[in-house]
Amino acid sequence: MHRIQVTPAHEIVVDRGCLARLGGLLDGLGVDRPRSVVTNTTVGPLHGVRAAEALGAPAPIELPDGEAYKRWGEVASLFARWLEGGLHRQHTVMAVGGGVVTDLVGFASAVYLRGIRWLAAPTTLLAMVDAAVGGKTGFNLPQGKNLVGAFWPPRLVIVDSESLATLPVRELRAGLVEVVKVAWVGDHVLLDLLARPIAEYGSIPPSAWDDLVVRAVQVKAGVVRKDLRESGARKALNLGHTLGHALEAATEYQRFLHGEAVAWGIQAAARLARNRGLLDQEEMARLCGVLNGLGPFPSVDLIGVDDALDRLALDKKRDDLGVGWVLPTNDGVVLDQRVSADEVRQVLGELKRFG
Amino acid sequence: MHRIQVTPAHEIVVDRGCLARLGGLLDGLGVDRPRSVVTNTTVGPLHGVRAAEALGAPAPIELPDGEAYKRWGEVASLFARWLEGGLHRQHTVMAVGGGVVTDLVGFASAVYLRGIRWLAAPTTLLAMVDAAVGGKTGFNLPQGKNLVGAFWPPRLVIVDSESLATLPVRELRAGLVEVVKVAWVGDHVLLDLLARPIAEYGSIPPSAWDDLVVRAVQVKAGVVRKDLRESGARKALNLGHTLGHALEAATEYQRFLHGEAVAWGIQAAARLARNRGLLDQEEMARLCGVLNGLGPFPSVDLIGVDDALDRLALDKKRDDLGVGWVLPTNDGVVLDQRVSADEVRQVLGELKRFG
Repeated sequence: MHRIQVTPAHEIVVDRGCLARLGGLLDGLGVDRPRSVVTNTTVGPLHGVRAAEALGAPAPIELPDGEAYKRWGEVASLFARWLEGGLHRQHTVMAVGGGVVTDLVGFASAVYLRGIRWLAAPTTLLAMVDAAVGGKTGFNLPQGKNLVGAFWPPRLVIVDSESLATLPVRELRAGLVEVVKVAWVGDHVLLDLLARPIAEYGSIPPSAWDDLVVRAVQVKAGVVRKDLRESGARKALNLGHTLGHALEAATEYQRFLHGEAVAWGIQAAARLARNRGLLDQEEMARLCGVLNGLGPFPSVDLIGVDDALDRLALDKKRDDLGVGWVLPTNDGVVLDQRVSADEVRQVLGELKRFG
Repeated sequence: MHRIQVTPAHEIVVDRGCLARLGGLLDGLGVDRPRSVVTNTTVGPLHGVRAAEALGAPAPIELPDGEAYKRWGEVASLFARWLEGGLHRQHTVMAVGGGVVTDLVGFASAVYLRGIRWLAAPTTLLAMVDAAVGGKTGFNLPQGKNLVGAFWPPRLVIVDSESLATLPVRELRAGLVEVVKVAWVGDHVLLDLLARPIAEYGSIPPSAWDDLVVRAVQVKAGVVRKDLRESGARKALNLGHTLGHALEAATEYQRFLHGEAVAWGIQAAARLARNRGLLDQEEMARLCGVLNGLGPFPSVDLIGVDDALDRLALDKKRDDLGVGWVLPTNDGVVLDQRVSADEVRQVLGELKRFG
């Protein structure tokens, strides 16, 4: 079992097969067992039901599956079920699923009765290394993604890397993009581990998966520990997310998985950085090469450049000067870079030639 | 100008006439001017419009007036207006109104883009001495009051005691009940100042009002400073609220203003405490006498005792042992008292004889 502490009240446990013995795991750690397990209709039959059984908890609440359901209606339905079940302030809840489930349950627990404890059991790679770690929770409004939210870290993030075996390859690929991101930010040895074609990931031994997840979580935990509320250093983790979010919005969240859009976003940021002399050509090629190995990703070909620029102007992280971009450098990233529309046009044009 | 600091990021300013010179006040204190002022349809024409003008801010957003509108739909409408207006994370918003407005705007600012700064300008006595101080924010669900919320203190609470002049006497009365509550908890000199019939409050000079508000805020600030998240000492401020909330719920929030229900709740708690030997008969008479001087309040006569008991069982502050009551003692309060249904039946019967 690997234990990574972000704060005394926010720890990550990576432990192969642990979902089947959750009750004992929590008892051993001195963490209260959850009274309500929330999952979705896809993950429920694979892992959620088993997790609830291992806890002696009631059958899990199943949310509909998909980003479209990361919305107020689902949060309200959780409140209704929790009130019905007599869930009070001393109780704990648990999310079992991908980033949509952990974001929603985390937010609901942040504001239910002004805040109750929660645990996250991420079952996708993306949620294991990113969404469930660090306490960002929230939901989408019709006007955009994650516009409502709270910083409310789960007491414990429980990673059973065995659940990666049931993950569709497209989800795995999207999650690996976030691993590439944290590797560039803080662990270039991890980046080398990722430099292989996606087809080869099928034959990685379990212990190597554990290593990969633990290394990625360690980078993220280190960054979050310094800056929980994203006033400074944590912004580094937005590498690739500025254009990524714009691409997702410009395609109505239909074409890309989040990680796929971020892959394009990182490639754009790398080209911007190269054009500005912040990143050597070889380093750009190295970063883009690792990402290309994980591809192919859905095409950016038919996205209008002006449409993408309009979406950028609405970014949640903008201020009076516009959006502050994170750009890769030879040994990490620089924050708060102001990028002109012309620079974005140019790199989008380059990316479109790639398909 | 009186300045009371709860934390370095949560201060209260009491300053007669300050709403008309808000811009200068904030500039002088080094606090950013808000980009959005939110009020309601009643307070807007009286104070909200003037406050926005004094800030050079756009015309205020007016919410519908009343507890029935402390709900998700109004929170969502604020998000829509703020997004439309380009409000970003570096911006500040401001609430001008009573507790419903400050609770709603405070909550919306707690979760909009995962949290922005806000200021509160309470215009009712209840909001000045209670709702706007201490950072409790939230809204109601169909299942009950304040079931969704966050601890998110306003950077500044700006109290213009002049606005009390426009307050209906019923609202004033309800606010004075919360002043009685904090006086019993922490300032018995203040309690003596309150020992007069409601009719006499019309002739209190302005400086005495300021004194009354400042003393009440000082007690509340002192309690909140020790325990922002209500894990201990802050529970003292729930004196009268356990039965008070149940009476509000049992009458569908139609019959009582919050403070009026709390007045009955304090009287019940005082009788319970007397019956248990926690409070001398004379002290009970003193506390109830001050409250009676502020009455008469809407009657509890037609409320079914079993209905009230059912509502108590659903209290937000319950745990596995039920609800922990706050009971008054000769020199303050005791927390977490477990009260039987029979004890509640007995005191409710006594109160009903009062009308």
